[in-house]
Amino acid sequence: MPIVRVEIARGVASVEQKKAVIRRMTEVLVEELGRDPDYVFVLIDEVDTDNWGRKGRSLTDLWGEREG
Amino acid sequence: MPIVRVEIARGVASVEQKKAVIRRMTEVLVEELGRDPDYVFVLIDEVDTDNWGRKGRSLTDLWGEREG
Amino acid sequence: MPIVRVEIARGVASVEQKKAVIRRMTEVLVEELGRDPDYVFVLIDEVDTDNWGRKGRSLTDLWGEREG
Amino acid sequence: MPIVRVEIARGVASVEQKKAVIRRMTEVLVEELGRDPDYVFVLIDEVDTDNWGRKGRSLTDLWGEREG
Amino acid sequence: MPIVRVEIARGVASVEQKKAVIRRMTEVLVEELGRDPDYVFVLIDEVDTDNWGRKGRSLTDLWGEREG
Amino acid sequence: MPIVRVEIARGVASVEQKKAVIRRMTEVLVEELGRDPDYVFVLIDEVDTDNWGRKGRSLTDLWGEREG
Repeated sequence: MPIVRVEIARGVASVEQKKAVIRRMTEVLVEELGRDPDYVFVLIDEVDTDNWGRKGRSLTDLWGEREG
Repeated sequence: MPIVRVEIARGVASVEQKKAVIRRMTEVLVEELGRDPDYVFVLIDEVDTDNWGRKGRSLTDLWGEREG
Repeated sequence: MPIVRVEIARGVASVEQKKAVIRRMTEVLVEELGRDPDYVFVLIDEVDTDNWGRKGRSLTDLWGEREG
Repeated sequence: MPIVRVEIARGVASVEQKKAVIRRMTEVLVEELGRDPDYVFVLIDEVDTDNWGRKGRSLTDLWGEREG
Repeated sequence: MPIVRVEIARGVASVEQKKAVIRRMTEVLVEELGRDPDYVFVLIDEVDTDNWGRKGRSLTDLWGEREG
Repeated sequence: MPIVRVEIARGVASVEQKKAVIRRMTEVLVEELGRDPDYVFVLIDEVDTDNWGRKGRSLTDLWGEREG
C-alpha cells in the first residue's frame, strides 16, 4: 500500500539508476514494514533546475556558479 | 476549496478522457460534499512509465513484458 | 495504477461521505480510463482551517467572518 | 528545512519571474519563521492547461472561451 | 490559480506566524505573477519530527542531539 | 537535494521502523545517485485508514473484513 515519491533534479539519474532506486526503495518497505510489493508504488518526479530553488536561488544558477 | 490530484501513467488518457475525469471528479465533490465548483481544482499529473514503479520494477518493464 | 489525492478542509466530510468520495472517484477512473480498481488508490487529506489560506487569509478567519 | 511547492499553469511565468518567486518565498520563511535558507527548498511545478481543471472544465477551455 | 504547499516541522510556527506566511506567499504570487488572490490557495502541512528525516536521521534525533 | 515522501497507513510503522526507513531510503539515494545526505529529505506521511481507499473502499473496511 505504501506510495513513495522521489523528487530529484532533472539530469541527475539515468534510466538504469532510476530502476535501481525503484527496486531498492521497494525492498526497504518490504523488508522494514512487511508490505506486499505488489502494492508498493514508487514514483520519480524529475524537476527542471530552473524550477528548484535553494538558498533563494535556482539550482541552474547555484550549480552554474559552482561549475563556473 | 477541495483540490484533487490525479496521477496516471503517461499515455493512458486522451485529452477528451482527461476532460471527462475533470468534469466527473468535480461532480463527485459538488454532489457528495456540497462544495462550490468555482473553487474545486482538479490537477492531472502524467508520469512517464520509466518513473513509475510497482513490485520493484518500472511500468516500462512490467508492461513491456506483459505485451512481449 | 492511478493515485487520487483529495485535499479538503477538516470538518467538511463525515466518514460516510468520505466512503462515497472514495467509491465514486474510483468509479470515474475505472469507467473513463479503464483502470483496474484493485490498483486505484484514493487518499483523502483533511487540512486544518488554520493551515489553508485563500485571498491571503486562513479559512478559519474567512469562514469565521462569513458566519459572524 | 521547509519545503515549498508552487503549482502554476504552464506559461504564466518566465524564467526571471520564477527566480523572483523562489527568492521571495525563501525570504518569507527566513523572515517569518527564522528558517536557515540553506535548507529551504522551493519547487515550482508547471501544469499543462489541459491537466488543470476548475468548475469541472480544463483551463484550456475556460481560458480559450475568455479570450474567444 | 496557483497552489502553494508549505511543509514545515510541527512546532516551528505559531498560528500568527502561519497567517503571516499565508498572507505573504499570496502577495508574492499576486505581485510577481499577477494572479487573482481569490484563487490562490496556500496549504501548510506540519510534519512530526519523527516523520521528517535529514542525513538519514529523524529531526527528533538530530534536534535532540543539538539541544543535548 | 532529493526529497522522498513515503505515504503509509497509520499504524503500520513504529518509531523505530520509521527511523530504519529514513536511514535506508537516504542510503539508496546516496549510493545510487551520489547525492549529499546533508540535503536528502525523507518525509513520512501516516494516513488514517478511513482516508485511504483501494478497490473503491476504505482500508478500514477492507482490512476489517480481512480480519473479520
